[in-house]
Amino acid sequence: MSKSFKDLKQCSAFPSLIKLAEAPLDLTNSANMDSERVRGYQVSGAGLKLYYSTQRVDGDVLNCLQSVADEAGLVKQFCEMKSGAVLNKIDGFDSENRQVLHTAVRDLFSTRPCEPQATAQAKVELEKLKVFLADFDEGKIRNSEGEPFTTMVQVGIGGSDLGPRSVYEALKAFQLPKRKVFFISNVDPDDAAAVLRQIDLKRTIFNIVSKSGTTLETLTNEKLVRKALDDAGLEPVQHCIAVTGEGSPMDNPSEYRTSFYMYDYIGGRYSATSMVGLVVLGFALGYEQVLEFLQGASDMDYHAEKQDIQKNIPLLMALLGVWNHNFLGLSTVAVLPYSQPLHRFAAHLQQCDMESNGKSISRQGTKLEVQSGPVVWGEPGTNGQHAFYQLLHQGTEIVPAEFIGFLESQYQKDIEVEGTTSQQKLVANLLAQIVALATGKNSENPNKVFEGNRPNLLLAAKKLTPKAMGALLACYEAKIVLQGFVWNINSFDQEGVQLGKVLASRFLNEMVESGAGSTGWESQFMNEVISG
Amino acid sequence: MSKSFKDLKQCSAFPSLIKLAEAPLDLTNSANMDSERVRGYQVSGAGLKLYYSTQRVDGDVLNCLQSVADEAGLVKQFCEMKSGAVLNKIDGFDSENRQVLHTAVRDLFSTRPCEPQATAQAKVELEKLKVFLADFDEGKIRNSEGEPFTTMVQVGIGGSDLGPRSVYEALKAFQLPKRKVFFISNVDPDDAAAVLRQIDLKRTIFNIVSKSGTTLETLTNEKLVRKALDDAGLEPVQHCIAVTGEGSPMDNPSEYRTSFYMYDYIGGRYSATSMVGLVVLGFALGYEQVLEFLQGASDMDYHAEKQDIQKNIPLLMALLGVWNHNFLGLSTVAVLPYSQPLHRFAAHLQQCDMESNGKSISRQGTKLEVQSGPVVWGEPGTNGQHAFYQLLHQGTEIVPAEFIGFLESQYQKDIEVEGTTSQQKLVANLLAQIVALATGKNSENPNKVFEGNRPNLLLAAKKLTPKAMGALLACYEAKIVLQGFVWNINSFDQEGVQLGKVLASRFLNEMVESGAGSTGWESQFMNEVISG
Repeated sequence: MSKSFKDLKQCSAFPSLIKLAEAPLDLTNSANMDSERVRGYQVSGAGLKLYYSTQRVDGDVLNCLQSVADEAGLVKQFCEMKSGAVLNKIDGFDSENRQVLHTAVRDLFSTRPCEPQATAQAKVELEKLKVFLADFDEGKIRNSEGEPFTTMVQVGIGGSDLGPRSVYEALKAFQLPKRKVFFISNVDPDDAAAVLRQIDLKRTIFNIVSKSGTTLETLTNEKLVRKALDDAGLEPVQHCIAVTGEGSPMDNPSEYRTSFYMYDYIGGRYSATSMVGLVVLGFALGYEQVLEFLQGASDMDYHAEKQDIQKNIPLLMALLGVWNHNFLGLSTVAVLPYSQPLHRFAAHLQQCDMESNGKSISRQGTKLEVQSGPVVWGEPGTNGQHAFYQLLHQGTEIVPAEFIGFLESQYQKDIEVEGTTSQQKLVANLLAQIVALATGKNSENPNKVFEGNRPNLLLAAKKLTPKAMGALLACYEAKIVLQGFVWNINSFDQEGVQLGKVLASRFLNEMVESGAGSTGWESQFMNEVISG
Repeated sequence: MSKSFKDLKQCSAFPSLIKLAEAPLDLTNSANMDSERVRGYQVSGAGLKLYYSTQRVDGDVLNCLQSVADEAGLVKQFCEMKSGAVLNKIDGFDSENRQVLHTAVRDLFSTRPCEPQATAQAKVELEKLKVFLADFDEGKIRNSEGEPFTTMVQVGIGGSDLGPRSVYEALKAFQLPKRKVFFISNVDPDDAAAVLRQIDLKRTIFNIVSKSGTTLETLTNEKLVRKALDDAGLEPVQHCIAVTGEGSPMDNPSEYRTSFYMYDYIGGRYSATSMVGLVVLGFALGYEQVLEFLQGASDMDYHAEKQDIQKNIPLLMALLGVWNHNFLGLSTVAVLPYSQPLHRFAAHLQQCDMESNGKSISRQGTKLEVQSGPVVWGEPGTNGQHAFYQLLHQGTEIVPAEFIGFLESQYQKDIEVEGTTSQQKLVANLLAQIVALATGKNSENPNKVFEGNRPNLLLAAKKLTPKAMGALLACYEAKIVLQGFVWNINSFDQEGVQLGKVLASRFLNEMVESGAGSTGWESQFMNEVISG
């Protein structure tokens, strides 16, 4: 793809947006908020519904944002990405130079997938998974004493942990009976120790996940796990499977009883719908639910091709985020799911968003002239209402909020107290926060004044099913990618992690060969700290 | 306490700090970073050590911050707080008008506690807890079939959840054998459902925690739990204990087999060292470990009385935070523990800090002229390195980072891979991030440039023991309170949660009596959402 799209600052609507941001819509003025606005400011797609009447936007702002979308060719680039364009690169500089095809692994339901080759590769892996899971169900996969495995422990970090873990937690209600799932990620030895003391090693299969096959934490934890198996008189190869890149150092059938592949056109943080996520989800939920999950994601990937920002949920979310961040000057975003099963979803999005868009140079290697990605954070409601919401309502930092909600619970185990169910209370609280943040409330007591005008939105679905989860995940992935296009950055590399790796190796060397390679104050610092 | 202390903006050093912030110390200039700085920029206290050579401060800035501390009477106010001053108030307006005495409940180790009456009340509750736990150990507390309880489920939300839960997770390595602990907090019915399906109800005791005895979520979940007990043919009163305020609607011995009190001079978010936290921690860890935890907290409370900012860890952290937030203009703080057991600690601090200091008016009811509390967020390292650290290193938002680290692991189950243990790898990574964020690195490839000058600090201890956890918790509580004094705000109320409660009730009423009390666009909004 050649440089045919405009930077945000070059877009013709940029000056108008700067101007409009001087007096954004006042949500506390009741004349601005009416039924018509509520009905008009919503979008449906792929089973999700976005309500955005509580954003500080009007028709003028939306027109400008549409113009940015068109001039910057956001949807065009998104479609090019899906079709295999090499978007993971920096023009004129050494970079990864890769395609970006996390959408291809779920593009399974069309007779004409956007990038047939990657989808074909995904289908091969899915077929392997189907067989593997059927063998599990039929008891063909057993430990050395002939017993079936009951527990899977995923060993991975970053994209090989947060995505799969947050989706697993979200869908645990649909777990097959008698299956247990754990995760080990941190190189902190207490992470593995805490998991290992909870499980029956004999009945456990470890899924070792690293695309490169060289991740320090994962390889260290794999050794730790293999030693534990050894110490228990178990044969490690019988208890280990792998998800890795073809040809990586971990692509070694003599070490793993089964291996699944992922490909370098999928970044770790976008890999939850590849084998990185699907093996453990398949074990927990069964193959059919995995397909539902993929269907939801694929539906959203197609929904995201609409050019009209008022008909495209992730595109609109991306542009509303740009409005809040670049024009209203708000530097963070809170993701607030009113759903306890989504308790790790904000942590996953934090990774996916901040690793993608926490950049300072353009795709042409020039220093950005606008702010790129915001800080993303959040915890589930109603819990947050009893914690950090004080600052959201009355603090001096304004935090745009993205609420997520569902009409029905997963377990359907509910109780009526004082005439309403817990689910109704949950939804009532969700709606109340949306209104309160937007409209505020005056008072004669200055401590009871709510200034309002805290922009927020609601992303809702009927129920948090595997399909809805797929759509939700893909919606945020698309939002993040589309924002990267607005900022004209490469959302698919992560050079920012390299320096820490180099320095960590140097400190490790110094710890082993004390005094070796002394590097001035850093060595002094290390010695001060490790001598306590 | 009369208004005898100065606002930040009135402090004589304020203009100097504004001026100094125009050209803060350049951490990327190696001439500024030497062994002397490393040795000079550290403070010890209560078993913790703070290293802050990677903050953008020099002698001039520290002198100004000391002057702010003195003029604003930060330590003086802290000591007055410990002695029972009514600090939870807004002068001239209706407010809670309460003392702030979370420190009193751990002021157990001095012959002359700062506020003897509150400490005496705490000792009564502790003695009740000691007896209760001994009865547990000796098997005097049993279910109706004469079996001992093995599981405790804490039902509470906000301060009755995040503090106790994060401390419990931090210290799970020290758990007594065969004891299990769970938490139910969210009004989302799926939270309770997911816990209830994991436990053996017959052997479970529920600890219902609500200071006011009126918390919607907790009362709803209590009813749900009692119904589950009923349905299982168990007698709810045999399975429920309570922690609540004396005289609250929950202070009802006919409903609970035992009750513990907490008092209104302790805010929920500061209540982890009261019975709100100690009952469940005592059940999990035993009474002796509870005392160690309290000892650590008390040690820190006394350490925090030092006037010299370079000898007082929480005071210095508070002022460094103010420097970064109010003078360098950085709007968030990341808390990054290199310790998997601290995986919920940032969420607790998010609550404690943002609910305390997310305010917009002074203690005199005037609008603040400076920014108050920042957004606090974070996840454990090394996990975060594979997630959001990209933005920390190369993003356009600068995020001050507070690292937390330990020299030894808890379980001491470690493995050497390539000559180093996992714990060494963990510490090496921690040190590497500190150095990398501060000093950065140049490159001819613009995508590999690290600009550095990301301020950070390290709070370290030998090992995450109950005592160290007590000190760590009290350190942050003190930091938060001291920052509130700098901003001249009431860090102890939470009026910002009220509007949401009122609106939630209104929506609930409308759901039940459809059409009732229709309130314009809000009703339209509700109807649109709940009809899907």
